[in-house]
Amino acid sequence: MEPCFLTAAEAAARIREKKLTSEALVRSCLERIARRDGDIRAWTYVDPALAISHARELDKRPPMGPLHGLPFGVKDVIDTADMPTGQNSPQYHNHQPSKDAACVTVVRENGALILGKTDTVEFAAGGRKALSRNPHNLAHTPGGSSSGSGAAVGDFMVPLAFGTQTGGSHIRPAAFNGIYGLKPTWGAVSREGAKLLSAYCDTLGWYGRSVADLHLVATAFRLHDLAAQKPVSVRGLKVGVCKTPFWNKAEPSAQKTLAIAAERLEKAGARIEELELPARFGGLNEAQRTLMYGEGGPAFLPELLLHGSRLNEEFQDMAENRRGVTAAMMVEAYDLVAECAKNFEAMFARFDTVVTPSAPGEAPEGLHTTGDWTFNSMWTEMHMPCLAIPCTTGPKGLPVGVQLVGPRYTDARVLAVAAAAAPVIDSEPKKTPT
Amino acid sequence: MEPCFLTAAEAAARIREKKLTSEALVRSCLERIARRDGDIRAWTYVDPALAISHARELDKRPPMGPLHGLPFGVKDVIDTADMPTGQNSPQYHNHQPSKDAACVTVVRENGALILGKTDTVEFAAGGRKALSRNPHNLAHTPGGSSSGSGAAVGDFMVPLAFGTQTGGSHIRPAAFNGIYGLKPTWGAVSREGAKLLSAYCDTLGWYGRSVADLHLVATAFRLHDLAAQKPVSVRGLKVGVCKTPFWNKAEPSAQKTLAIAAERLEKAGARIEELELPARFGGLNEAQRTLMYGEGGPAFLPELLLHGSRLNEEFQDMAENRRGVTAAMMVEAYDLVAECAKNFEAMFARFDTVVTPSAPGEAPEGLHTTGDWTFNSMWTEMHMPCLAIPCTTGPKGLPVGVQLVGPRYTDARVLAVAAAAAPVIDSEPKKTPT
Repeated sequence: MEPCFLTAAEAAARIREKKLTSEALVRSCLERIARRDGDIRAWTYVDPALAISHARELDKRPPMGPLHGLPFGVKDVIDTADMPTGQNSPQYHNHQPSKDAACVTVVRENGALILGKTDTVEFAAGGRKALSRNPHNLAHTPGGSSSGSGAAVGDFMVPLAFGTQTGGSHIRPAAFNGIYGLKPTWGAVSREGAKLLSAYCDTLGWYGRSVADLHLVATAFRLHDLAAQKPVSVRGLKVGVCKTPFWNKAEPSAQKTLAIAAERLEKAGARIEELELPARFGGLNEAQRTLMYGEGGPAFLPELLLHGSRLNEEFQDMAENRRGVTAAMMVEAYDLVAECAKNFEAMFARFDTVVTPSAPGEAPEGLHTTGDWTFNSMWTEMHMPCLAIPCTTGPKGLPVGVQLVGPRYTDARVLAVAAAAAPVIDSEPKKTPT
Repeated sequence: MEPCFLTAAEAAARIREKKLTSEALVRSCLERIARRDGDIRAWTYVDPALAISHARELDKRPPMGPLHGLPFGVKDVIDTADMPTGQNSPQYHNHQPSKDAACVTVVRENGALILGKTDTVEFAAGGRKALSRNPHNLAHTPGGSSSGSGAAVGDFMVPLAFGTQTGGSHIRPAAFNGIYGLKPTWGAVSREGAKLLSAYCDTLGWYGRSVADLHLVATAFRLHDLAAQKPVSVRGLKVGVCKTPFWNKAEPSAQKTLAIAAERLEKAGARIEELELPARFGGLNEAQRTLMYGEGGPAFLPELLLHGSRLNEEFQDMAENRRGVTAAMMVEAYDLVAECAKNFEAMFARFDTVVTPSAPGEAPEGLHTTGDWTFNSMWTEMHMPCLAIPCTTGPKGLPVGVQLVGPRYTDARVLAVAAAAAPVIDSEPKKTPT
């Protein structure tokens, strides 16, 4: 098998055991990119010579950390000191940051090498869409705003990649591309050096092709309680199935997928119970929009002042507060979110995990949309860890998945539950990639 | 009078009326710096030729905004594209960012010019102290971590400067240097491009020598409701006097100053009532420390990985979580803060403003400490606007002040109340600076 088809955890093990070099892995990824990216368009910047030279250096030195020798894709709203960071914005075309973003430093210092930058919705916030296509069907979006990272990992071009999420920009592309994604607890990972949209909601996450991949990266970031967390068994696992107050936005494929996931878990010995959220949770999607647009105003004011009418109108609107977000709306939104987070965690006490849709259905057709973040907003603003797991395919043969969510700062537990539950939920045979 | 002694609002008016050039103002500030900064050491970087050339350009063009022609000092944890940003850290000595921080762009695009960078506690977070001294007595600290910005404005070297606050790093130096400072509502001003410590607490603010100065900058940042806000009168003003649960930490000078401020307001016709905070508020200072150290871990992980034992031990401790902040402590802290913020705002309904100490007393002697942020933490983590007003002097002849606080996103009202209350509170004759 070509090394590019290995998961990050598999590749890391082979590199550790000296059965694979980082250079061979990187060359395999680069070949895949050369062959496929004309169609997929996941990448905005790849420097093959630089990547190979980094891989060779890593092959020569003792392991730096759990990610030693692994190539990483970086969403192009995240600063890299040796590659331009374009934000998919004409105003940042070829902009060269002086410093790596915090997350890039963390993975580099744990032995990863940056393979390149991945396409994104402009500023991860609106405006221009990425050119990336869904590897499962080129006529469909890979989701957004982490479009290129999701497509690149989904297409076996790179085993790991960073995304960001303010509404549903990280988990939704995981679902659409049939991959795994972790959006950790807000505050647990520094997002310094990633473009700001909403200080309260912006969260940095990563993609892989297995739970073990996500766990590897989590160890690099030293998420709370990883070492102390014991393995979990599906037998006896108390699973809350949460349709959310937005169930009417779930397409039949997403509704069916949640039922399939629950059924598979139940068959494997889990105890399934529906978790119905109180009516107050129905206001959370609107609250997330309020926070995003309300905090997006100050975030895009500098761009408006610098670029005026050359700035995409969506960001002009945000900076000018044309949606009319008021002070009272902001305070109400923060308070609702805090109240619901506390309530959810109280209700969570009787569960080991909660499973809920990761997107409203399959990836929509066309590149004019990146899909809908209805099923992501509330978890993002409540700062809770979310882990996307592929489950089945929809009527068009595209991936449909679920996500596991948990209380704030229980990332280690979410990862442990996912390690047990993923083989059950994601149990359909897959086409061998070619 | 030398132009450097003008407040920002006075200088802006004269520049607008063509009675003063930006160049003359900048030259006066540069002379003051040349004469005084050998003692005060507020600045880490000043490029006189660059500042004069910017001033000349501004003098040639039509007004760009409310700050046209005004020099601004920038705390050296805030990125500037044309000046190094050293973080007072050996690891960032002479580091040159590729891009201005968001706040720097906003003031530049409103006509301000950056006079230079001001000294700071390392990363605005711990480690090395600034070399800056208190202009009122060189043997005393100007406070921190915004040490240089506070001292520079207090010593008439620059009319305006940026600071940042995670605990009490902005309001405390305002108090110690006898100047005005606004820490706006968290989220109302982008802190992109300022070093991260705690994503939940970090807030960017500015110093001036009058409420009108702070208001000028607030208009540049387009804080909510500034245009709609009506002027306020002290007569009939409902003032809550808040000793906070930490009153036992207030030195006699701070206790006396709060009483003096209340008395002056009452004499001017305000209605004074004590606001006693419920017992739960007593946990807020500990909560702020939990959030700061808990979020400081991820923030300093990249520095630890890059610099290892060369990194100041305080940041190693933070990144290694040697204080043992747990997941449960983090969640409890966030929830307590959210609960108290909501409660405070409910109690605030019967007041027009709340006045409370800005620091425990006068600036302490020596440069080994920057003073205590006991009276600042809770307002910072509750995301509420705070405005420091000088009031009187303590037993050593150093300034002691108070702060006005208000509910989240009521910055415009806090500024309006301060505009009325400041002439009453800050009514003692001042020595003419020389």
